[in-house]
Amino acid sequence: MTLINILDLIGTFVFAISGTLAASEKRFDIFGALFVASVTAVGGGTTRDMMLGATPVFWMIDTNYLLIISLAVSFTVLFKEKVAQLRKTLFLFDTMGLGVFTFIGLEKALLHDISPAIGVIMGTFTAVLGGIIRDTLCNEVPLIFRDEIYATACIVGCLVFIGFSFLGVSALICTWSCIGTVIGIRLIAIKYKIGLPKI
Amino acid sequence: MTLINILDLIGTFVFAISGTLAASEKRFDIFGALFVASVTAVGGGTTRDMMLGATPVFWMIDTNYLLIISLAVSFTVLFKEKVAQLRKTLFLFDTMGLGVFTFIGLEKALLHDISPAIGVIMGTFTAVLGGIIRDTLCNEVPLIFRDEIYATACIVGCLVFIGFSFLGVSALICTWSCIGTVIGIRLIAIKYKIGLPKI
Amino acid sequence: MTLINILDLIGTFVFAISGTLAASEKRFDIFGALFVASVTAVGGGTTRDMMLGATPVFWMIDTNYLLIISLAVSFTVLFKEKVAQLRKTLFLFDTMGLGVFTFIGLEKALLHDISPAIGVIMGTFTAVLGGIIRDTLCNEVPLIFRDEIYATACIVGCLVFIGFSFLGVSALICTWSCIGTVIGIRLIAIKYKIGLPKI
Repeated sequence: MTLINILDLIGTFVFAISGTLAASEKRFDIFGALFVASVTAVGGGTTRDMMLGATPVFWMIDTNYLLIISLAVSFTVLFKEKVAQLRKTLFLFDTMGLGVFTFIGLEKALLHDISPAIGVIMGTFTAVLGGIIRDTLCNEVPLIFRDEIYATACIVGCLVFIGFSFLGVSALICTWSCIGTVIGIRLIAIKYKIGLPKI
Repeated sequence: MTLINILDLIGTFVFAISGTLAASEKRFDIFGALFVASVTAVGGGTTRDMMLGATPVFWMIDTNYLLIISLAVSFTVLFKEKVAQLRKTLFLFDTMGLGVFTFIGLEKALLHDISPAIGVIMGTFTAVLGGIIRDTLCNEVPLIFRDEIYATACIVGCLVFIGFSFLGVSALICTWSCIGTVIGIRLIAIKYKIGLPKI
Repeated sequence: MTLINILDLIGTFVFAISGTLAASEKRFDIFGALFVASVTAVGGGTTRDMMLGATPVFWMIDTNYLLIISLAVSFTVLFKEKVAQLRKTLFLFDTMGLGVFTFIGLEKALLHDISPAIGVIMGTFTAVLGGIIRDTLCNEVPLIFRDEIYATACIVGCLVFIGFSFLGVSALICTWSCIGTVIGIRLIAIKYKIGLPKI
């Protein structure tokens, strides 16, 4: 198991928590929570795999994802007050998940001989689509269409990866620059309350 | 044509009626009704097939589904009052559809060499996703996230199938125990108004 | 590049403008606009390709679509007032897009050995699903379920294509009769305010 695998599972765990919290605000039952948590955690990667034709999709082959999501939902339901207090920590892990998911989506697209420009979209898609479906299922306008620099961080992270690859930088540095860029931009945007212009 | 095929088509018919009724409450036109009915009836299986890579998806190969859905929409539109009076009968057929769809989804996943744990999800998905998309399209929070033991019946039905298979029970008994469990749990939950705990 | 290709790109451009305008009404930011524009423009074809198993989906192979959508969003954001004044012109191009998308979807399905009856659905799906997802993402009930003869035009256009093909009419005439029928029905329905009966 590589470091990326571990970070991927941590990201899945935290995304699933965010889905469970959204379900809890809507007073869903446990099945609703499991469903929304799953969609938040693996919805982006699932759509990516279906669009690429990389089927059966990733979590159908590796049951770790299912296990991690079930753990995240149980944990959140059992320790709801605790989880609420951890919002700052969760935010950090969520941001890390965003970076790792972006890299994984970009890499998977490139491995399928997709052009780098489309790879940027697939990386961003992998990271943000789960949250978009979560909000749609909860009958809300997707938060990230309005409020924050979120997808933008993913897009820039992908561009850094592609630029560095093009310049012949080693894969390891490309990978971590991509993930680091996503995390960095997101943290700076939150700290200084930077958003995209409304149209 | 096996008994399962026939029950599958009856389930499709009844799910399509439920979609038409939802469309009718929102005052959609006939195309809206056809679309919502189709999504309710085959949306779960379509997503399952796309995630498995079993493409073209099932109803694109077997036009019976399309025919049955058109019949269900026409029937509901023409005999709206009658259909409204039949709610109890419809509920019984809907429950039967739930059981059959669950079994079909589980079996298809297992035939694609998916692990039993993921098979449970695919069975449940096949049965409940159509209703979730129906409610989302109608701009409602999906009913089954909140109100009833619905998906839970599917999950337990799948577990019964897998448990019995593991014990070497004949395929026929596995199949009908799965379908029977889904129907039984659902009927008991409705009769005694049992729901899942809210989170 | 054939005339159909060019019309396809023009249709994509206009559909993306309609997505951008919907995003703008909801006060989304630029990423939200790009996302909604993309979904409106290529969401129907993407779902079609995933259901057919024609993966990676079309816009992942041909980056022109991505480019056109970006241009449409930039254009709409920069010249918002101008675009608002062009509504009549946009409507004409939108109708043309509807016709071309219908034909492309139908043709692609037939090339995958799908039966003509299902081909009608795939053609209609390709043309209308993007708008349905757009409205759902914007937390609105899909407009075309209620208000206008829209999908019906696509269905009749497909039937004309299939009827003419069956009669041995040349492919060129089949194609343009299909596109012309969609455009004609839509224009007449708008001019005389004809809608489908509500159910």
